[in-house]
Amino acid sequence: MARIVMKFGGTSVADLDRIRNVANRVKREVDAGNEVAVVVSAMSGATNQLVKWCTDLSPLHDAREYDTVVATGEQVTIGLLAIALQTIGVDARSWQGWQVPIKTDNAHGKARVEEIDGTLLIERMKTGQVPVVAGFQGIGSDNRVTTLGRGGSDLSAVAIAAAVKADRCDIYTDVDGVYTTDPRIVPKARKLPAVAYEEMLELASVGAKVLQTRSVELAMKQRVRVQVLSSFEDKPGSMVVDEDEIVEQPLVTGVAYSRDEAKVTLRRVPDKPGIAAQVFVPLSEANVNVDMIVQNLGADGTTDMTFTVGKTDLPRAKEVLEKARPVIQFESMITDPEVAKISIVGIGMRSHAGVAATMFKALSEKGINIQVISTSEIKTSVLVGLEYTELAVRALHTAYGLDAEG
Amino acid sequence: MARIVMKFGGTSVADLDRIRNVANRVKREVDAGNEVAVVVSAMSGATNQLVKWCTDLSPLHDAREYDTVVATGEQVTIGLLAIALQTIGVDARSWQGWQVPIKTDNAHGKARVEEIDGTLLIERMKTGQVPVVAGFQGIGSDNRVTTLGRGGSDLSAVAIAAAVKADRCDIYTDVDGVYTTDPRIVPKARKLPAVAYEEMLELASVGAKVLQTRSVELAMKQRVRVQVLSSFEDKPGSMVVDEDEIVEQPLVTGVAYSRDEAKVTLRRVPDKPGIAAQVFVPLSEANVNVDMIVQNLGADGTTDMTFTVGKTDLPRAKEVLEKARPVIQFESMITDPEVAKISIVGIGMRSHAGVAATMFKALSEKGINIQVISTSEIKTSVLVGLEYTELAVRALHTAYGLDAEG
Repeated sequence: MARIVMKFGGTSVADLDRIRNVANRVKREVDAGNEVAVVVSAMSGATNQLVKWCTDLSPLHDAREYDTVVATGEQVTIGLLAIALQTIGVDARSWQGWQVPIKTDNAHGKARVEEIDGTLLIERMKTGQVPVVAGFQGIGSDNRVTTLGRGGSDLSAVAIAAAVKADRCDIYTDVDGVYTTDPRIVPKARKLPAVAYEEMLELASVGAKVLQTRSVELAMKQRVRVQVLSSFEDKPGSMVVDEDEIVEQPLVTGVAYSRDEAKVTLRRVPDKPGIAAQVFVPLSEANVNVDMIVQNLGADGTTDMTFTVGKTDLPRAKEVLEKARPVIQFESMITDPEVAKISIVGIGMRSHAGVAATMFKALSEKGINIQVISTSEIKTSVLVGLEYTELAVRALHTAYGLDAEG
Repeated sequence: MARIVMKFGGTSVADLDRIRNVANRVKREVDAGNEVAVVVSAMSGATNQLVKWCTDLSPLHDAREYDTVVATGEQVTIGLLAIALQTIGVDARSWQGWQVPIKTDNAHGKARVEEIDGTLLIERMKTGQVPVVAGFQGIGSDNRVTTLGRGGSDLSAVAIAAAVKADRCDIYTDVDGVYTTDPRIVPKARKLPAVAYEEMLELASVGAKVLQTRSVELAMKQRVRVQVLSSFEDKPGSMVVDEDEIVEQPLVTGVAYSRDEAKVTLRRVPDKPGIAAQVFVPLSEANVNVDMIVQNLGADGTTDMTFTVGKTDLPRAKEVLEKARPVIQFESMITDPEVAKISIVGIGMRSHAGVAATMFKALSEKGINIQVISTSEIKTSVLVGLEYTELAVRALHTAYGLDAEG
């Protein structure tokens, strides 16, 4: 007997047939003697329609009213799934965010979960009833419905799993697990039976969008064992767990890429103390996230600074830097949106030297020029020309022995 | 300055343009210095879709989950209307049933309003904010969303008008008021400037479906002045008020008809005490509503009993009566669904004799046979052949001087 939270996204509950399919999956876990709670998203497309109505009425709509409208998507699904479960003999009851309650802050449209009291849910689960909880929503201290922002249902599921002390949080999605890299680029990519939280975070942050980053952070903090699996196929997925649970740890677990960054270079900046602050504080104040940073010292008392920003933030970044030019005193600014960030991720890198060298050698052998390098404890990233994305990913996947056999 | 509750039905909020139109109407009342609260239904069609999903999953769905699903229709509209109001500079805030709260019993799917605390709404209205309240829904003592049954938004509006001590409850609809009869049958029908609660109740119960019956009952009990008016045209509607407010009281206010009844006759029933109970108790236990009843005593110690039941209840009524035949001992049962009930309604009938005589004479002159007659304090109804419906209505409308001039 285990206590399980099962989470189904929008495509898994897109119509009545799929909702019936979800109900059957839930019934199987209940019949196996498990205590089950379910978290669901809105039927796919529903949220977009609701958002569009709000935006059409006013691009600058009140976030509180937006939340009132948009939260109805999940409310519909919980009621329908509860009915579908009851129809096949599973005792079930729907729960809206305010009924649990899932307490959040009052940042409407992108609220953060503050506290979930799992007592009521646990009580019901112990009687064999399946709570069907609306994902993506909560209740603020202003007694108004809040939503957690896009992808928030994953976060709801992990938070509820923590609140009910679940043995496992199963995230059903349209992919069947976490892969060593994007299978669309590398057909020999392998599904990973297990990934460490830290690895999943790094993979998520560089574009492997299986799980929302905030939900992985929360799972790591609360030690919730998460499984990513397919809602359409019937086979085990990938476990996202504490690294101690992973028996055989490879040096590199996965290769990830991101095409969402742009490169900015400030040429011939006077090399004086505080210059980094003069560049990055104004960017931060303008909500521009800066990622990779390198600085090359010149011989003449000037320096070249290169860094990356989100591609969509590039126009804003340029504006901010031009405005700060009298202070920073750079000679010229060169920007390039035609770049990709390729990363290798693996807990094993912590205890092994020379892992990155393999990366540089593999890329060099393919004639790929590395523009910027940045490293963290369990990740090494390089910036390359956008057109080399697939080539670089494939080369690294092979170089680290990740290709599937046969 | 007045305090007004404005209620808009599904066709009035069917799309974003109509919601904007409603917002403009509300703004006009606010600009005129009034304190305004708004009650809205779901966008037309939305509720039907939600109901269909529930029914498709299970014809015998759990009413609590049905309520969870169906209540989302109004939740969407309140959020959108609040945004539309804010966009044109009107301070507005949406309120779901549980936020007001609108406390109901736990009869899910057809709950009754038990108590509305208007304090919070009045506070907001006094600051110039417009509360936009979801019609049709409330919250039960089980902390679950309830719905009031079809047409329940009218009831919500009247109940909220009572709770905030409103001077008037304006019900915007797709007709522009209450008419002396159905204008589709009698082009010379006139819009009534005022109707008494009791008259409105009798008119509603015989098929003039302008206002839901329960909402008129509540308005009468709580002395809420209700106005029925068009959401598409800009002119005064009909006031539904206490009879004391109506200056010139005609003998007959309106002519109504209903094609929803069927006639049942039990021939040669033994005329013994308790026989009526033997007939009507089993029908009542089977939830068959009996309306008009007449009994003709025969010369031979038997009697013929004739009564009407809802047309959709006829098969059930026949089954129940056949089963009770050994006890009732009727000789034969004759049923006829081809009937119509025509009624004249008017407070003036209370104080004037001979009003009904005009009815019988007018119908007789047109060669219309009266099958059953029933009377109440302010209404006289006759049952006639279905094919005579229009002829009878027109004849009575003329006979009581209700035709518009010109």
